[in-house]
Amino acid sequence: MPTSHFSVTVLGLGPMGRALAGAFLDAGLRTTVWNRTPGREGDLAGRGAVVAGTAWEAVGASELTVVCVQDYDAADAVLRQEPVAAALKGRTVVNLCADTPARARDTADWADRHGVRYLDGAIMTPTPTIGTPAAVFIHSGPEELYREIRPVLDALGGTHTHLGEEIGRAAAHDIALLDIFWTAMAGFAHAVAVARAEGITARELAPFAQGIATILPPLFEEFAADTDDGTYSGELNPITSAVSSMAHIVRASESHGIDASVMRTIEGQARRVVARGHGTDGFLRVSELLGRTGT
Amino acid sequence: MPTSHFSVTVLGLGPMGRALAGAFLDAGLRTTVWNRTPGREGDLAGRGAVVAGTAWEAVGASELTVVCVQDYDAADAVLRQEPVAAALKGRTVVNLCADTPARARDTADWADRHGVRYLDGAIMTPTPTIGTPAAVFIHSGPEELYREIRPVLDALGGTHTHLGEEIGRAAAHDIALLDIFWTAMAGFAHAVAVARAEGITARELAPFAQGIATILPPLFEEFAADTDDGTYSGELNPITSAVSSMAHIVRASESHGIDASVMRTIEGQARRVVARGHGTDGFLRVSELLGRTGT
Repeated sequence: MPTSHFSVTVLGLGPMGRALAGAFLDAGLRTTVWNRTPGREGDLAGRGAVVAGTAWEAVGASELTVVCVQDYDAADAVLRQEPVAAALKGRTVVNLCADTPARARDTADWADRHGVRYLDGAIMTPTPTIGTPAAVFIHSGPEELYREIRPVLDALGGTHTHLGEEIGRAAAHDIALLDIFWTAMAGFAHAVAVARAEGITARELAPFAQGIATILPPLFEEFAADTDDGTYSGELNPITSAVSSMAHIVRASESHGIDASVMRTIEGQARRVVARGHGTDGFLRVSELLGRTGT
Repeated sequence: MPTSHFSVTVLGLGPMGRALAGAFLDAGLRTTVWNRTPGREGDLAGRGAVVAGTAWEAVGASELTVVCVQDYDAADAVLRQEPVAAALKGRTVVNLCADTPARARDTADWADRHGVRYLDGAIMTPTPTIGTPAAVFIHSGPEELYREIRPVLDALGGTHTHLGEEIGRAAAHDIALLDIFWTAMAGFAHAVAVARAEGITARELAPFAQGIATILPPLFEEFAADTDDGTYSGELNPITSAVSSMAHIVRASESHGIDASVMRTIEGQARRVVARGHGTDGFLRVSELLGRTGT
């Protein structure tokens, strides 16, 4: 489709929604925006966006509606109103808000019952990446529909990957990747607290912390293969050695009165793996144990 | 000093100790090795290493001894024997094993009382990096001593940074960086478990997980500045939004019977920040709260 004649609606004008709408405008698409709380459109009107007064007017203005609100509770509150559902009949919704795979499946059922064409997606990179090559989007749902709207999605920049027809697949990836992201950020926040107690500023720590981040990608690749194959190789770094490091972190933190409950929990999981006789395995053996709560 | 005529001893022949000894041999240094359990020297003898029969013979054979055992308990068990301390008098020990800053300070006191010159250090990269430009070492202790032995350390490859004269400084960095590393790895192990429950293999997840790792370094830099300045900017990503993501991760995990205790703990910390009236701040505000256990 010639995207310059295509129209798109963005529901939700938080920082990410505004960035998406801005990228659509920059690509020359006729763009309609709406936010539950009015007045959040920033400079989008000046850049050519139509600011709709109601959600049903907004979705009725375009063939494609992109939803970017806090989560599916917020999305449901907008979409599952009778006039909005009626206006969406025969049109397409791409839901880019983050929630669980179960919610994505439930929304797909709702869309199916109301004759709405539905794709689920997730944005894996921060707001400033939107419209740039650094943006990363993942999608799931009917492949034919994905192919049809792909030229519009390309206006958002970056890479788009269709992960499969199963509608929950993008949300499942999103959950897993946010899990890595927020756990890593929690580690960084904790490290900053420990460093500060030792007279090291966050700025002093940052270059070394960046070094740690750069060793993660090859380890993720290696450990992923180990995990799929069930080998959990610990040859160079057995989980007993990880337990020892974790105990040092807990001790050093608590000696400064710093809450170490996250690392205590991780250490406890690793110790359970050792107690089950897997002390020479690598740390990733923990991933098996996590799925066996209660055993 | 001409390193080719210099002698060095490595105590501890786990995978990392063997890699260090191998790098010293490759650099042409006269290298003596010792391990508590004999027979761990692998091919080092064939490559020219002298395998000492006792720890005191090992440390007496070289001007510089590098210690690379599990932790300071293991190091103390070797170093704090009368014949070893006697053999070390006037010589230099570089302790590369990981432990807390308090243990490093205690060992420096011991070394001082026994006339042993002492530097503390840590290795921030995995075993295969030793002898390559990718290795990262940090050191603390007397600067003059560091300058003197630096040519020997350079045989290990990579970058060496002297963080200051305060002997605990390398260990403090080490603890903070291991904190980031192991917390991030725990996030990856958990994500793999969640992905598996959703029918996604670790190999399928890995490329996206690597993408997440690549967005961390610029965020670490940005959040470090925010933290030192006390601004904790949440403009593009307020902590309320993080809490929402964390709740989704917990819900999706537990719907599959996967232990979500780590993320539950992180979510609880973030919710406490919101409850204290900092809901529009960024997630790093958590680092302040962690140091206030009991309040």
